[in-house]
Amino acid sequence: MEAVSGKILSYDMDISELVTKNNGDEVKTHGMIYSIKPMGDFAFIILRKSDGLVQCVYEKGISDFDLNDIGVEYSIELEGTIKKDDRSPNGFEIHAKNINVLTKPAADIAINISKRKLSLSIEKDIELRPLDLRNNQKRAIFKIQEGIVKGFRNYLSSIGFTEIHTPKIVANGAEGGANIFKLDYFGKKAYLAQSPQFYKQTLVGVYEKVFEVAPVFRAEKHNTPRHLNEYIGLDFEMGFIKSFKDIMEVETGVIKSMLSTLKNNYAKEIKMLNVDIPDFEEIPCVKFKDAKEMIAAEYNRKIKDPYDLEPEEEQLISKLFSEKYKSEFVFVTHYPVKKRPFYAMDDPEDSKYTLSFDLLFRGLEIATGGQRIHDYDEQVKKMFSKNLNPDDFESYLMIHKNGMPPHGGIGMGLERICARLINEPNVRYTSMFPRDMTRLVP
Amino acid sequence: MEAVSGKILSYDMDISELVTKNNGDEVKTHGMIYSIKPMGDFAFIILRKSDGLVQCVYEKGISDFDLNDIGVEYSIELEGTIKKDDRSPNGFEIHAKNINVLTKPAADIAINISKRKLSLSIEKDIELRPLDLRNNQKRAIFKIQEGIVKGFRNYLSSIGFTEIHTPKIVANGAEGGANIFKLDYFGKKAYLAQSPQFYKQTLVGVYEKVFEVAPVFRAEKHNTPRHLNEYIGLDFEMGFIKSFKDIMEVETGVIKSMLSTLKNNYAKEIKMLNVDIPDFEEIPCVKFKDAKEMIAAEYNRKIKDPYDLEPEEEQLISKLFSEKYKSEFVFVTHYPVKKRPFYAMDDPEDSKYTLSFDLLFRGLEIATGGQRIHDYDEQVKKMFSKNLNPDDFESYLMIHKNGMPPHGGIGMGLERICARLINEPNVRYTSMFPRDMTRLVP
Repeated sequence: MEAVSGKILSYDMDISELVTKNNGDEVKTHGMIYSIKPMGDFAFIILRKSDGLVQCVYEKGISDFDLNDIGVEYSIELEGTIKKDDRSPNGFEIHAKNINVLTKPAADIAINISKRKLSLSIEKDIELRPLDLRNNQKRAIFKIQEGIVKGFRNYLSSIGFTEIHTPKIVANGAEGGANIFKLDYFGKKAYLAQSPQFYKQTLVGVYEKVFEVAPVFRAEKHNTPRHLNEYIGLDFEMGFIKSFKDIMEVETGVIKSMLSTLKNNYAKEIKMLNVDIPDFEEIPCVKFKDAKEMIAAEYNRKIKDPYDLEPEEEQLISKLFSEKYKSEFVFVTHYPVKKRPFYAMDDPEDSKYTLSFDLLFRGLEIATGGQRIHDYDEQVKKMFSKNLNPDDFESYLMIHKNGMPPHGGIGMGLERICARLINEPNVRYTSMFPRDMTRLVP
Repeated sequence: MEAVSGKILSYDMDISELVTKNNGDEVKTHGMIYSIKPMGDFAFIILRKSDGLVQCVYEKGISDFDLNDIGVEYSIELEGTIKKDDRSPNGFEIHAKNINVLTKPAADIAINISKRKLSLSIEKDIELRPLDLRNNQKRAIFKIQEGIVKGFRNYLSSIGFTEIHTPKIVANGAEGGANIFKLDYFGKKAYLAQSPQFYKQTLVGVYEKVFEVAPVFRAEKHNTPRHLNEYIGLDFEMGFIKSFKDIMEVETGVIKSMLSTLKNNYAKEIKMLNVDIPDFEEIPCVKFKDAKEMIAAEYNRKIKDPYDLEPEEEQLISKLFSEKYKSEFVFVTHYPVKKRPFYAMDDPEDSKYTLSFDLLFRGLEIATGGQRIHDYDEQVKKMFSKNLNPDDFESYLMIHKNGMPPHGGIGMGLERICARLINEPNVRYTSMFPRDMTRLVP
């Protein structure tokens, strides 16, 4: 009887293993050819592997193959000898002896993948994503994204949060409004979840502290550099808070973990993309109302909308806090009731405001959070005040009715954090396959 | 200026910390009251915390509060003294001095949450999920699920796979057929992804080895104990395979990692749910055709459908391999072309079959995988043979056109693995908030 035992594939040598080899060691590896640079009697063959690029050297008379038999985006196996060299990107190169061509492209490659900057229009860039992600810089962006998610998850796991998976096809929107995708669900009206809000609160009653990494859907008709119609939400929710500031403490811990994960494990990508990792001890907090007034005074602006921050105001608050308090992050707290959803808890000191906050990073809101209403009567009253019918939320209200601890949480947008970190103005560049009003492919 | 620094909340003491305290130590903790058991002059107050239940002891004359002031599902803070006791579940109990009631339910609790078995009909169970997940046994199911996901992710990360996030609103279905949810996307026709198939293949061209944990949507009109209309897919895809068996090696490594993660980190839940963790070295492999014939002979059955396995056949194959080869897992390989999707690679030795496989575990298919077509012409030809128009797959075919290594991968259903592990016949019990043909709430 044939069987498999889960053995590590011995031929599958990543750079992390190749780098441990000694000068002169014979190795066998594989990869897709990223570029070929002929230099007369020799040539550099750059291989793309799972963990980056490897420099291989073809030498006439020594290498047993013909350069004309290979080309970019060929998948090959290669045998050769390790040559340690501090000048090459990984500290070694492979002097190629033999190659074996596994597959080749069926046509000329549509773009010059290995160029440092691809210089495509954003529309062309997205259209060609299946190829342009093969570019080493583009590829690095989503390694950074991987690191951000790892930092989020590992930190929360380490302080006792439970990972959850909640449904994305739902019967009610959590955020209300028209920004919701509708679908037919076996003849019933259903929606795509705008956030895991109801479910993560529900699970605070079960696990006290929970988090989720999952897609979030917003049918917003915004075509801006800050909006996507589908993005990855990093959500957490926690019970037994003594103040909504506790949520901000955990969020700050999360951010620190994300940044240290990147520093410790993604040094190559940080260098490649020239990422400026912020170094900080504390994140300052400012009340929404005060922030508005501070920038109005500082930058001589009129306050147009007293209930929300305009994108320009977010930028100015960041500017002010960066210049005056040397902080690239700032918590804006106590948003007006009018602009916060029905589950937001009012500030007991001023019921026009809520115990909620946004986190701004380099001019952009990257997370929204706050304390939630846990009392049943208070929640029902707030629903009425927002013209909602409590009967529509029967199974959500089950948690308030049956007891909930004081609790709150946040939702962050992965693509936004990533975009601000790598200093990319448009979030479409930090989504692998962005969904916007005009794009469903690739 | 107020600020937050990401400090660990000092009052937030989980069981993992309480258990390190010494006999007689004074502690302060919090939780929701799971049950109160009066025993005359004293009473047990069981607290539900983030990492399980803690036994607290009320003693008349010593405890400074009245038992009548508390009830189940109250959220409380409690001060008391650690008493080490090997008979209590965590090796200690807390002798309560004071309590502080934070919140209380607004109504009588609808079910007796702390009963060992809730004995609800499945419909009632799902309807009351926000409450019945508070039950200690129910709660444990999704800790097991968390462990399965951790084992999947940690193993693949450790052998160089990159974590990816791919869109769930898509322009084409990967699996074809009518089992797909449709939605209106700003006036365009869109679908909910039936799998990350096209995207994970695309990203093999970028990262060589990738995985994703994300929701998968199937509009299947099946109302069976094996089907959900939304579930969590555990997907991986890898390049430079030498044979489709390489994929099965990695999948076996994944399974081993899941089981060892559970054994090492979820011992409490394993014990509570009486989970029988399979212990094995190898997983046997049998060809689809041979498996059919083996069970036909062994169990005296007629072969009705030569192209697919009936659920009963899956059960019998598992039975046979469990009895004859002492294996609870079995790989069934070489499924017929007719029943596999258009991207499945044909078996070069017999083109009626594909280089694909299912993994059966205790009578149920828990994963499907196989080698994919990487050659452009071959893929286009196969599309035509399946009555598909290559023009509809332009951006997917971009990868074949521009070069792809030999590759393949698998998709597993989280709820199914979990259900077989905990010996729960219906997958609805292993989805927190299951979606089936009749259910959108909770």
